[in-house]
Amino acid sequence: MDITSIIGLALGMAAVFGGAVLEGLPLSAIVQPTAFIIVFGGMLGAILLQSPQVDLVNAVKDLPIIFMGVKEKPGEVSELIVNMALKARKEGILALQAEIGSIEDPFLKKGLELMTDGTDPQLLRELLETELSHYEESVTHASKVWEGCGAYAPTVGIIGAVLGLIHVMQNLNDPSKLGGGIAVAFVATVYGVAGANLLFIPLGGKLKGNRRQTIMTRAMMLEGILSIQAGESPSFISEKLKVFMHGHDGGHKKDPGPEA
Amino acid sequence: MDITSIIGLALGMAAVFGGAVLEGLPLSAIVQPTAFIIVFGGMLGAILLQSPQVDLVNAVKDLPIIFMGVKEKPGEVSELIVNMALKARKEGILALQAEIGSIEDPFLKKGLELMTDGTDPQLLRELLETELSHYEESVTHASKVWEGCGAYAPTVGIIGAVLGLIHVMQNLNDPSKLGGGIAVAFVATVYGVAGANLLFIPLGGKLKGNRRQTIMTRAMMLEGILSIQAGESPSFISEKLKVFMHGHDGGHKKDPGPEA
Amino acid sequence: MDITSIIGLALGMAAVFGGAVLEGLPLSAIVQPTAFIIVFGGMLGAILLQSPQVDLVNAVKDLPIIFMGVKEKPGEVSELIVNMALKARKEGILALQAEIGSIEDPFLKKGLELMTDGTDPQLLRELLETELSHYEESVTHASKVWEGCGAYAPTVGIIGAVLGLIHVMQNLNDPSKLGGGIAVAFVATVYGVAGANLLFIPLGGKLKGNRRQTIMTRAMMLEGILSIQAGESPSFISEKLKVFMHGHDGGHKKDPGPEA
Amino acid sequence: MDITSIIGLALGMAAVFGGAVLEGLPLSAIVQPTAFIIVFGGMLGAILLQSPQVDLVNAVKDLPIIFMGVKEKPGEVSELIVNMALKARKEGILALQAEIGSIEDPFLKKGLELMTDGTDPQLLRELLETELSHYEESVTHASKVWEGCGAYAPTVGIIGAVLGLIHVMQNLNDPSKLGGGIAVAFVATVYGVAGANLLFIPLGGKLKGNRRQTIMTRAMMLEGILSIQAGESPSFISEKLKVFMHGHDGGHKKDPGPEA
Amino acid sequence: MDITSIIGLALGMAAVFGGAVLEGLPLSAIVQPTAFIIVFGGMLGAILLQSPQVDLVNAVKDLPIIFMGVKEKPGEVSELIVNMALKARKEGILALQAEIGSIEDPFLKKGLELMTDGTDPQLLRELLETELSHYEESVTHASKVWEGCGAYAPTVGIIGAVLGLIHVMQNLNDPSKLGGGIAVAFVATVYGVAGANLLFIPLGGKLKGNRRQTIMTRAMMLEGILSIQAGESPSFISEKLKVFMHGHDGGHKKDPGPEA
Repeated sequence: MDITSIIGLALGMAAVFGGAVLEGLPLSAIVQPTAFIIVFGGMLGAILLQSPQVDLVNAVKDLPIIFMGVKEKPGEVSELIVNMALKARKEGILALQAEIGSIEDPFLKKGLELMTDGTDPQLLRELLETELSHYEESVTHASKVWEGCGAYAPTVGIIGAVLGLIHVMQNLNDPSKLGGGIAVAFVATVYGVAGANLLFIPLGGKLKGNRRQTIMTRAMMLEGILSIQAGESPSFISEKLKVFMHGHDGGHKKDPGPEA
Repeated sequence: MDITSIIGLALGMAAVFGGAVLEGLPLSAIVQPTAFIIVFGGMLGAILLQSPQVDLVNAVKDLPIIFMGVKEKPGEVSELIVNMALKARKEGILALQAEIGSIEDPFLKKGLELMTDGTDPQLLRELLETELSHYEESVTHASKVWEGCGAYAPTVGIIGAVLGLIHVMQNLNDPSKLGGGIAVAFVATVYGVAGANLLFIPLGGKLKGNRRQTIMTRAMMLEGILSIQAGESPSFISEKLKVFMHGHDGGHKKDPGPEA
Repeated sequence: MDITSIIGLALGMAAVFGGAVLEGLPLSAIVQPTAFIIVFGGMLGAILLQSPQVDLVNAVKDLPIIFMGVKEKPGEVSELIVNMALKARKEGILALQAEIGSIEDPFLKKGLELMTDGTDPQLLRELLETELSHYEESVTHASKVWEGCGAYAPTVGIIGAVLGLIHVMQNLNDPSKLGGGIAVAFVATVYGVAGANLLFIPLGGKLKGNRRQTIMTRAMMLEGILSIQAGESPSFISEKLKVFMHGHDGGHKKDPGPEA
Repeated sequence: MDITSIIGLALGMAAVFGGAVLEGLPLSAIVQPTAFIIVFGGMLGAILLQSPQVDLVNAVKDLPIIFMGVKEKPGEVSELIVNMALKARKEGILALQAEIGSIEDPFLKKGLELMTDGTDPQLLRELLETELSHYEESVTHASKVWEGCGAYAPTVGIIGAVLGLIHVMQNLNDPSKLGGGIAVAFVATVYGVAGANLLFIPLGGKLKGNRRQTIMTRAMMLEGILSIQAGESPSFISEKLKVFMHGHDGGHKKDPGPEA
Repeated sequence: MDITSIIGLALGMAAVFGGAVLEGLPLSAIVQPTAFIIVFGGMLGAILLQSPQVDLVNAVKDLPIIFMGVKEKPGEVSELIVNMALKARKEGILALQAEIGSIEDPFLKKGLELMTDGTDPQLLRELLETELSHYEESVTHASKVWEGCGAYAPTVGIIGAVLGLIHVMQNLNDPSKLGGGIAVAFVATVYGVAGANLLFIPLGGKLKGNRRQTIMTRAMMLEGILSIQAGESPSFISEKLKVFMHGHDGGHKKDPGPEA
């Protein structure tokens, strides 16, 4: 559970719209179905026209990790790899085939399969590095879908506002409609700017931030798989993997790997 | 057929202008021939002055793939290459000459021609890599033409709006013309912002996104041609090409290549 | 003659100002000498303060190629180089000295001079690569002068507009001057935004685009000179140079080089 | 103590709000609890939704160095390393183990530990370089949290302003509330733009600037540790480390390292 | 004397404010001490909070070269180096020690000192390259201080304008103050936008542009020092240094180096 995502979304909405209510603005004043259709329909159209289908699918498929958090725990992965290195040393690399079935992460699974299949070390490194860099690229493109929503929402909101103002201008002879009409026009602006800043742009950022951890963990898996294949000592591997787990200075004391 | 492009374009237009109609604004209020001439004539002038002719031609020539989708199917290309590798192993590289005639993709065709002509492997790699990087560059420049339209449309729209407001200001002594005049000025803003955000900027993005797939497929062709030339085993080639076909994690199960 | 540059400039001006006239705005309403002085004088001051003299000189010196087009024709250059390679093979490299006098392009001339002077191949490559990269840099800086004009014009236009509005505000007690005064203030905005978007930004883009071709042609010259020096076969050189001439896919059929 | 940070923050606030008071605006006019809730609550929500927890923690943990200054003094670090190099030469590398306990900087401490543990030079360099590059990345992400606040504050301020204007528009029939209502709406704009420009964006910049020095000092530590391990002469090490300490030209006279 | 800097600054100010006076606006209307305090005090606070002290010092120290021009003349430097190469060939490298005292440029001086001290060629190159890249970085950071002023001035100007408008809104019941009050609010906008566009942003650009020449000259010094150390022939060195002196094409005829 990524608690800051949930708090962030709730807090942003509550502060902005709760603040408006506190100030005396009835919520009904900012509920405007046509403004909603214009802003989010237009935004959806723009992003569908812009993004290749594969990016759209990835953007939606990655949404859960924003609120559920990243599954990979670098500490556990490191421990798992060091344990496999121990087993490979004692019983040979083929002994690892029995363990592959229980591994969930598709990248680690594939890497181990290729390794136990006897793939040439040079080719194995190339395959896994290309795979990882394609993955990085696909994450970038998925988060660009959300950032694209964040870019289109305010500009389509401006279209909605100007269309509203055109409407108002046509009724200038009836001054009683003036204020209300302009208010309606402003709601499209609020929808666009709030949608972008309280939802879409932060979503894109979090997606990239969370995936950064996945990418770091996979880089660790890559290093670990190649080290097992090279027959390096488990304690040496453990030392090498630690470097992927450090935070910002203070992290040096909580190495989860075994000091075998 | 790239269905999301068509849906995206239709949805964006329908939501924005349908929403305006739902709100009570007659469509006639946003039909303004002079605003259209100013905004899109000015934008066209700017983009013609800015872009080298070759980029303009490519930008227009690439338009169909936005709605028709990319022809290259990575799975089919991989299969084709693996089959050629099988044939080359059995009958020699020259046997592939018969197949070149039926190949449509100009990049694959050229690469195979150069290979069967006995081009030196090092030079062949260099030629194909330079070709591919020139192609990437030309795609970037073509999509910049559409992004340029998306950048000029709103700014020329602002020129149109301010010219309209100048006109309005000159008729301030006739208040009855005020509202209508401002409405006319606003239409130029709508044309510029809507043209950029519902059409031009998404077009530029889709062009780049679609061509990303073409570039990936060509990178696969390049790797495949060089592998055939090097006489690598078809099963090994198949394994190497898979890495160009993966989506975002889940894709590992649907390898279309033969496990020869 | 770069016909799209001329059409682009004329079309942009005609559409925007012709459109305004069509709408009923007299052209005299947007002729404002003081606004012109403020916007373009201020912009010129900013760009003079910003740019080193060498960049300013290059920016002006490169202006003709925007409308006259690029002189270098890749096909002719390739043919020239292949012919020189033939001659060098038959009569020796020194025989090329007679031809250098008739070469106009300073880069090709210098490279051939250095080659016939017996410059060491490694040093020759280094000298020409450094020369080319300095040239690329100087083109970038020259086009940044025009882009800088395009960035300053609208912001100085805003200064002009706000100064105009301050003037208007001081005459609020005389409402008859209101509309006209605001119109004057708006003209500065039109000058700034139109100058930037119909002229300066496109100029900067075209300069870079046109010079891209020059740079590509010089890269071809560099490769050709080094190949002649290395004594490579003319047909091989012709093959290598082709890669610098390709357009966007369809270009493979029109190789101008001789198949010697 | 980073005196310019403290002066900068105080001066910015004093000039802007003191200036407003000088102009006759009572400070009470810009104290608006609901505007405060909307702008900074919304901004906080956006940044919480956007940033991975580790970045948020680092952003807050790094706040003190903005006002307290950077602890690492390059001159002292260089002297320390040269002294250790002298000791290592006389008494052997293991003699340094006694000194590690008194070292505060976690990076230097870890590097020396690994060195005295007999880590292979190649691996030691790799481990320290990876550690340093992870540190650089974490600094970048931490400063992006503050820059993110600086980006969200003004846009959420606009939401607050437009919500305020909607409120105003609904009370147009009561003109006496008009001016005050608009003033309230403007306060949200002031909060957003002032928060971003007088606080958040400069904070992000200073964080990055201060950490630049830390990164430079750590690069010096890395070079020093590897030089000690390689058994280079202290005077040579001193010479090599000087290059990390130079300012902008004038700095060449104050080399703090011993000329052993 | 950098004449374009002085003309640029004078022309920009004269055109903008002279233009306003021509239009009939008394200069007194844009003299507003509190607006000045708000805009430039706020900007100064922001830049002090943002920039490390070393960058602030360098930004101010580099100001004279914007108006006085760059001291280093590439032609003279090249001649000096070639002459030293001649002397080193005839009398040995140690003979150059007598000349070092009269050299002003700190980079050239340091390099020659290190060379005559017998520094190892590989280390000498590394030291000088690191020194040069640190210098480049410090120039970038110094020019970012001026660009930062250019970024903060208009945004703080907006704060000043909105604070002014809040003041105006509180006095809506006294319409006679309306116009004047708004004029005061606009002055802050003019200060911010004019300060940024006529002064700070161009200053940052010129600083970078001028330092580009210094960096190029130092790259030439670096190459020259290493060539003298390697005992290369003066005529060969002269040839190599020419590449650092070329302008945009036409520059090939004025080689100042001796053809020894």
